[in-house]
Amino acid sequence: MARYDVAILGTGPAGLEAAITLKIRNKSILLLGEKGSSEKVAKAHTILNYLGLPSVAGEDMQAAFLGHVKEMGVEITEDRITLVYPMGDYFALQGKNNEIYEASTVILACGVSAGKPYPGENEYLGRGVSYCATCDAALYRGKTVAVIGSSPKEEVEADFLTEYAAKVYYFPLYKAEPKVKEAVEVIREIPREIVGQMKVKSLVTDQKEYPVDGIFILRESISPANLLPGLEMDDPHVKTDRQMKTNVPGCFACGDITGRPYQYIKSAGEGNVAALSAAAYLDEKRRQA
Amino acid sequence: MARYDVAILGTGPAGLEAAITLKIRNKSILLLGEKGSSEKVAKAHTILNYLGLPSVAGEDMQAAFLGHVKEMGVEITEDRITLVYPMGDYFALQGKNNEIYEASTVILACGVSAGKPYPGENEYLGRGVSYCATCDAALYRGKTVAVIGSSPKEEVEADFLTEYAAKVYYFPLYKAEPKVKEAVEVIREIPREIVGQMKVKSLVTDQKEYPVDGIFILRESISPANLLPGLEMDDPHVKTDRQMKTNVPGCFACGDITGRPYQYIKSAGEGNVAALSAAAYLDEKRRQA
Repeated sequence: MARYDVAILGTGPAGLEAAITLKIRNKSILLLGEKGSSEKVAKAHTILNYLGLPSVAGEDMQAAFLGHVKEMGVEITEDRITLVYPMGDYFALQGKNNEIYEASTVILACGVSAGKPYPGENEYLGRGVSYCATCDAALYRGKTVAVIGSSPKEEVEADFLTEYAAKVYYFPLYKAEPKVKEAVEVIREIPREIVGQMKVKSLVTDQKEYPVDGIFILRESISPANLLPGLEMDDPHVKTDRQMKTNVPGCFACGDITGRPYQYIKSAGEGNVAALSAAAYLDEKRRQA
Repeated sequence: MARYDVAILGTGPAGLEAAITLKIRNKSILLLGEKGSSEKVAKAHTILNYLGLPSVAGEDMQAAFLGHVKEMGVEITEDRITLVYPMGDYFALQGKNNEIYEASTVILACGVSAGKPYPGENEYLGRGVSYCATCDAALYRGKTVAVIGSSPKEEVEADFLTEYAAKVYYFPLYKAEPKVKEAVEVIREIPREIVGQMKVKSLVTDQKEYPVDGIFILRESISPANLLPGLEMDDPHVKTDRQMKTNVPGCFACGDITGRPYQYIKSAGEGNVAALSAAAYLDEKRRQA
């Protein structure tokens, strides 16, 4: 069986950047994920702060990323890894159809999965549903938005949205009393469903229906520790150092999976660092051999 | 005197990315540095791994960065800060002409300065002189290069260059015996001068002259602790956590100044994280007030 130098899990900005950097470093790579890159990227409205690509639509950014990777001769293997086994001096990876791959190092770039979505969430993602206030606030100038916050950390996002939106509803999914600006209306009801027609029309709770133009769903996610047994977590994220090393030798992580902020340029930057750390790890092992 | 929310020192990729992200966050910013961004960026040959800008010349990347910043309405104040004074709940910054600025937070994005350059180094930067093997190795396929390494960490770079160059000389600036590939010729002489005509022709040492096509100068640098008294260092870099916080409350750092790898996309990614950390710090202070 072919043993790759590096297996990269995920084809969002972190995984793609890791792939092109390792290509320059002449490492053999297995890049696993969706051929269309990240759905989150493609469905994003307009990204204002990916330096070098001013005011770019999600689908144009996706095209730029995939074009770049193609130009470098990097191919994407369409599979989803369900388990990673550390085998001592290499890793065995199990695909969703029980295909087995081998690689000397692994880079986890598979993002933060969003848990069970609300009915309508996937359907209206990019058409009123957003995961990022920094990215999309400006689209709701003078409009009405709902923010669903899974933790008190999200309160500053609701506050920030008042700088654009005319009306901000905040639905805390926790018990603590939210400390938000006066302009934010806190509603103690449980979101149930997102309703729309072509785009978001309203948020339905256990008690009422709120007409809104946008819904920001801000939450943590399930644990990727299930993917690689023994992986140290800073729940719900993978713990890394500044070189993007995890606690498992030869395993690196980058992008949303390592923590906030969930931003494309942050993910790409970390992909670069993870790639060069993996290359240095491989080079060091070869020098010792 | 106007007090800005954030003063950003440096207009390389880290500083520019921090500026556009803070602009979206509606913070008032003072962006200090060269109006032409980073000379290192402009003089780079071809950058292959800035995801989204495939195979881009340094000056084109510089134009893309500056165009983006301009489109966002961010202005650059051309000054060089010589000292930063922590004043309790804000910082006072002293410019090179004794101008004084005030800001509630500071982002250090001023890069790693390269110490005293070799004669000819600045002149031939981007015309045979390079600071980055990952970036420029492919330009020297079949050619002869010299690598000046300030520490044993640079040995893997010399090894890597043998994958492209026909001949690699390695000049260690330290006592330990280099452990490099057989293909690398280690030379125990002291580099003195870079000689060329339009582009690099040779490296002159204390004993001989070596005809080369390229010279990779790989070194650490002087301490930025002189800029901000009390700043914790991981010499020669500023120590930060994964949120780009330094040990000084309200002071953040990003880009080359925080450590390796010295890569544009890594710097931009960190600029984004530092900006959002500064915004969160400001928001938290206002909530407490």
